[in-house]
Amino acid sequence: MAPTITARLASTPEMLACFDDDALVRAALTFERELAAVLAEHGVISAAAAVAVARACEGFDASGLADAAAHAGTLAIPLVARLRAAIPDHAAAVHVGASSQDVADTALALQVVQATRLLDRDLDGLADALATVARGHAATPALGRTLLQPAELVSFGMRAANWLLGIDAAQGRLAREYRAACRLELGGAVGSLFALGAVGPAVRDALAERLGLVAAPAWHSRRDSIAGLGAALGIVIGAIGKLARDVSLLMQREVAEVAEPLIAGRGGSSAMPHKRNPTGCQVALSAAIRAPGLVSGLLAGMPQELERGLGGWQAEAPVIAELYALAHGAVHAMRIVAEGLEIDTTAITAHASEAATTERDAALAAAMWFVDEALAMHDAAVARRADRYPG
Amino acid sequence: MAPTITARLASTPEMLACFDDDALVRAALTFERELAAVLAEHGVISAAAAVAVARACEGFDASGLADAAAHAGTLAIPLVARLRAAIPDHAAAVHVGASSQDVADTALALQVVQATRLLDRDLDGLADALATVARGHAATPALGRTLLQPAELVSFGMRAANWLLGIDAAQGRLAREYRAACRLELGGAVGSLFALGAVGPAVRDALAERLGLVAAPAWHSRRDSIAGLGAALGIVIGAIGKLARDVSLLMQREVAEVAEPLIAGRGGSSAMPHKRNPTGCQVALSAAIRAPGLVSGLLAGMPQELERGLGGWQAEAPVIAELYALAHGAVHAMRIVAEGLEIDTTAITAHASEAATTERDAALAAAMWFVDEALAMHDAAVARRADRYPG
Amino acid sequence: MAPTITARLASTPEMLACFDDDALVRAALTFERELAAVLAEHGVISAAAAVAVARACEGFDASGLADAAAHAGTLAIPLVARLRAAIPDHAAAVHVGASSQDVADTALALQVVQATRLLDRDLDGLADALATVARGHAATPALGRTLLQPAELVSFGMRAANWLLGIDAAQGRLAREYRAACRLELGGAVGSLFALGAVGPAVRDALAERLGLVAAPAWHSRRDSIAGLGAALGIVIGAIGKLARDVSLLMQREVAEVAEPLIAGRGGSSAMPHKRNPTGCQVALSAAIRAPGLVSGLLAGMPQELERGLGGWQAEAPVIAELYALAHGAVHAMRIVAEGLEIDTTAITAHASEAATTERDAALAAAMWFVDEALAMHDAAVARRADRYPG
Amino acid sequence: MAPTITARLASTPEMLACFDDDALVRAALTFERELAAVLAEHGVISAAAAVAVARACEGFDASGLADAAAHAGTLAIPLVARLRAAIPDHAAAVHVGASSQDVADTALALQVVQATRLLDRDLDGLADALATVARGHAATPALGRTLLQPAELVSFGMRAANWLLGIDAAQGRLAREYRAACRLELGGAVGSLFALGAVGPAVRDALAERLGLVAAPAWHSRRDSIAGLGAALGIVIGAIGKLARDVSLLMQREVAEVAEPLIAGRGGSSAMPHKRNPTGCQVALSAAIRAPGLVSGLLAGMPQELERGLGGWQAEAPVIAELYALAHGAVHAMRIVAEGLEIDTTAITAHASEAATTERDAALAAAMWFVDEALAMHDAAVARRADRYPG
Repeated sequence: MAPTITARLASTPEMLACFDDDALVRAALTFERELAAVLAEHGVISAAAAVAVARACEGFDASGLADAAAHAGTLAIPLVARLRAAIPDHAAAVHVGASSQDVADTALALQVVQATRLLDRDLDGLADALATVARGHAATPALGRTLLQPAELVSFGMRAANWLLGIDAAQGRLAREYRAACRLELGGAVGSLFALGAVGPAVRDALAERLGLVAAPAWHSRRDSIAGLGAALGIVIGAIGKLARDVSLLMQREVAEVAEPLIAGRGGSSAMPHKRNPTGCQVALSAAIRAPGLVSGLLAGMPQELERGLGGWQAEAPVIAELYALAHGAVHAMRIVAEGLEIDTTAITAHASEAATTERDAALAAAMWFVDEALAMHDAAVARRADRYPG
Repeated sequence: MAPTITARLASTPEMLACFDDDALVRAALTFERELAAVLAEHGVISAAAAVAVARACEGFDASGLADAAAHAGTLAIPLVARLRAAIPDHAAAVHVGASSQDVADTALALQVVQATRLLDRDLDGLADALATVARGHAATPALGRTLLQPAELVSFGMRAANWLLGIDAAQGRLAREYRAACRLELGGAVGSLFALGAVGPAVRDALAERLGLVAAPAWHSRRDSIAGLGAALGIVIGAIGKLARDVSLLMQREVAEVAEPLIAGRGGSSAMPHKRNPTGCQVALSAAIRAPGLVSGLLAGMPQELERGLGGWQAEAPVIAELYALAHGAVHAMRIVAEGLEIDTTAITAHASEAATTERDAALAAAMWFVDEALAMHDAAVARRADRYPG
Repeated sequence: MAPTITARLASTPEMLACFDDDALVRAALTFERELAAVLAEHGVISAAAAVAVARACEGFDASGLADAAAHAGTLAIPLVARLRAAIPDHAAAVHVGASSQDVADTALALQVVQATRLLDRDLDGLADALATVARGHAATPALGRTLLQPAELVSFGMRAANWLLGIDAAQGRLAREYRAACRLELGGAVGSLFALGAVGPAVRDALAERLGLVAAPAWHSRRDSIAGLGAALGIVIGAIGKLARDVSLLMQREVAEVAEPLIAGRGGSSAMPHKRNPTGCQVALSAAIRAPGLVSGLLAGMPQELERGLGGWQAEAPVIAELYALAHGAVHAMRIVAEGLEIDTTAITAHASEAATTERDAALAAAMWFVDEALAMHDAAVARRADRYPG
Repeated sequence: MAPTITARLASTPEMLACFDDDALVRAALTFERELAAVLAEHGVISAAAAVAVARACEGFDASGLADAAAHAGTLAIPLVARLRAAIPDHAAAVHVGASSQDVADTALALQVVQATRLLDRDLDGLADALATVARGHAATPALGRTLLQPAELVSFGMRAANWLLGIDAAQGRLAREYRAACRLELGGAVGSLFALGAVGPAVRDALAERLGLVAAPAWHSRRDSIAGLGAALGIVIGAIGKLARDVSLLMQREVAEVAEPLIAGRGGSSAMPHKRNPTGCQVALSAAIRAPGLVSGLLAGMPQELERGLGGWQAEAPVIAELYALAHGAVHAMRIVAEGLEIDTTAITAHASEAATTERDAALAAAMWFVDEALAMHDAAVARRADRYPG
């Protein structure tokens, strides 16, 4: 599925593909197929039935599924019905013990796994690019600006180090929330998995293992991990937005300390052909405007009714998808900006002379200390990357 | 373009089509074509050039446009480039005087026109259905409930009248905000339309007339009307959400005063086949959770920089589209619910006997007064429908 | 009650006083006193009883009321209990027919009346100051800036006219929403006012008249007008935030086209004594960050349960109060900025020379046309001020 | 300072006291006093000067401070001016190296320390009360309800275990975010602490140690930890809101499985004296409506300009205070509800018979497994309480 114009203006094809119909149906079928496999292992259904379910998943026809899901009120109902219809001899072996929400929540978790890896790839790249700027310009004197007025001496590397720390911290939070959120949902009708009897717990744990997700008590109406993930994405977007705010301010022609890299066909104006707009910043700032409200929607939906709620959990998946889309659009755009950032050292140094301090060496030394500390923290963050994904 | 599963679970194909790529490109081309026609009328370009632009619009090839727009940072740049390439002899006649934001804002306004008519169609139907219930059950005694506890005697028609008043008021506000928001954007590079010289004002007014939009000073960085429209949509969704909250509470089996109409294949459960879920309410309540944050995003984006902002206006169109999608999903679902609402008069009347009052006739008379007043207000709202759309 | 430091940093003593305990209790007592007077007029209670209620209101002791209200869960319960205790012979004449929510909602409406007049006073002043700037600098050439990059020629007056239009439009919307929101709540236990029997409607209308509020069907669980008022305040704040964004950008030392007026002791820095910070803009931008989420809370609370909800309406009054506080803080601060704005015509004119256009006269004429249209619209808005408040 | 009626309806006196003027000024003075002490230790100022600063803090007169702060645009300016005026011989020793934002951010951190301990105290109590219910009713059969319709067999203890898991998870997240947010701000004018020269780093670390806060690079314009803390509070409130939603639904007279404890004078109705309203749930649900928008404001403010922003950080402290107020109001109210919850085992068991399953023993065993797992997780959470606060 090709992304729409509106979606592409804010995000990347790769991230949009993580949440399109193909990905959603694939994730839902993965749940059904692996559930059947585990059920067969535990003697709940026959091995032949599990093979049949896998075959039905393989040949699944998704045409018209959107309308069917909308009519039913949930994707699982037509999806399960089609699987059953495809293997009449083993129809009873499909979706055993599971609820519609088990499919929906687990499919979302599987999409989140892919999406987080993609996002982290570019967050890593962006952070490393900023670390390079911080290191390279640790001693480049620059004019600090506070409350949008000239203030005192910093270094340009210190400014980059500040961006870096914000992004590393946001990414660290995202990793924590990801570990809480990438979990299997398998609770059946009311969360206890009672239809599977005594093997319920074992089936749950084995399915989590197979899917690379965390096993946890059914979380049908306990949505803190979704809200936490959304908030972490919102904070990532906010940290990127801060970088974009600064780059766009520093790129004003009256300041002209940095510029987004020149890319043919990007950042033009249909009314003023020779203009050069900060298009990467535009994408990131736009995301930073849209994200906070999306996060609030996840929080507002938390008080879900009793064992499984009405409307609350159904509101989450599109919002999580939108937050990943905005986050990756922003991160991807600003990675390009950071990697190719044009830094006018001459202009920066010239402006630095306007700082009032007479202790310029001390001020520069203090800025370099900030950079050193930030880079040490970044090194620690890089070292933690290896442990980012459980399983 | 077929809507995605996620989009369809929350909205209707008709509304999603108002904001899909086809609609967006069509609206953008309408702007360019009619602009050329008006420019020809005012002698800015030749009549032949206007014909050529119309021809280029007719044969426009939108393939790959999403990627091209994302690369450029705005839809207008590749769109205008393709139009110019299609008519090399008249390339200079395309997009004269206009900016990228003129295209984007006007295209949004044109989509809003279609979307509002669609939304109003089902709001009218929903309101009329509720008026019928209010009228028919004006004297059906019912138990009022406050703070989720049994309270005093009302009538079932009074409850419906309360829903009706909420929806009529929300629709009235939407009509006011629609009139403020359905306006042409034509300001050129910086809002003054200076590239058109002395005919600028006349061109603007004529183009507004042709497009069925309101003429107004360029509003490139003055976004109150967009925020107002979004808030009005949020309030529509909130009013529908209130109806859905009540229906879902009254449909609890322990209360069982009403039920959503039985529709084959709708409201089922993949884990409990005989269950009957309030699926219409689910759609509406889900929308009511998502909408408030979307509105806050529009408000947060208002402080846009100087003559045209960076990131702010680019954040709006997808949010307006999402609000219309959620609004129509909710309204459409609840119209079906209202039109087919199963009302168990026996149960309602039985519960009414639990009210403490000994002045039952007086209480019922008071409820009927409420209904009468509400229906009179509804009649006035119906009478105003004819004047809803300017032009 | 003196406002707290935190509250004062964001708002004015006058507006904070509109919503402090004194104002709240006074408004609640006004409701009870006038209700008694109207009830006496309609023969529901005796004239002597109404006099007694008025006397009890006069001598009301509010000490410890906050704790008592919190314990009861609503202000009305201890308030009514104290009134009754003060006049044992006429205890039964207090609060006849009314509910706790009637008091709470009407008290809020009465506070809103005062608050809106205060807000409008400074919005008028701010708008008029901007109109003066627009008129005075209609022909001062200035450099337009779009997407934070230099663009084309405008005039400084056109920029001010754009601010003006945004504020006038926001104020117009506020007036409309005010008219919908400044209404009496009188519905009794379940909204039908049944305890008053046949005189209910007449009592409601007479009380509305006395209080200067609009009469309407009880709106206990129909909260569109509160949400609409909140959204209108959010849009006012957004429009002021746009002005503040621009002033702060134009006040950057690298641009230096305008400056906030110099006020002794304002805008200093504890670390850099000679710095001059845009403190008015700070107040307004801070409000613009906080307001959107507050509005979303009002929208999120709309789906209130049945005849009177649980938690929803209780969440509104503090949010409306906060929005008025932020709005007036922002408007008051920016009125001072606008009235004393230091405009460096030399710098502005010098920057204007960087615009690319060769048609400078035409560009300036176009900007002046924009100013003329805006001022004509402002004149119309001024003329409508007289009709702003019903009753 | 006595809390206002509005504040008390939503929160507790204890929590409101954590953020009132006394607490704010005390925290700000603690910063100045301990900074002076550390500066003396490091030879930046004399020991006598540090003693004088401490004395000035002791005798500080806060009268009129709110107006003075509002005029200056920041609390630090009048606060520091008064300290200096009080000790003319040592005036230069006050606030050395620090900025206004250092005071503001550190004061907020110190208030957060107190507030978090208070909140945790009642969260612990609430969780333990729910654990007791879960344990005691692990085998009490109950009717599960999904999408607000009767579903399948659970146990009442399983329902309580689900509430417990949500609150434990939210509290765990709060502890993590608290550790990130309870940090000293000491960066001086531009974040590098350059005015202190080579001892800057040592001064920062020693001051953090003294204040019981974490040392970190200046975070003037890097606000992820504030946003993270706010989101964690929002999630706590959401988890409490879920509990309140459920209790209020189960307390409907038509369901009547539980009731809030009967407390004299609480939960009454001014219109219907014998009514018993779920007032604890009302407080919690009201908080759950207001909190999400507050969190969105913190996220929206993240893109702060350059070394220190304009309006962004100034918007945070009141929002954090409001979130703590709402959180504690909700937690405190629901702790009382949970500790005194009236559970009608007979009614619950009777409703359980409506569940469709014929495998009742298996269903109950599955529910008990859920309880066991949840209680084991709770025990682990209890064990982690000891390590909750760094330093």
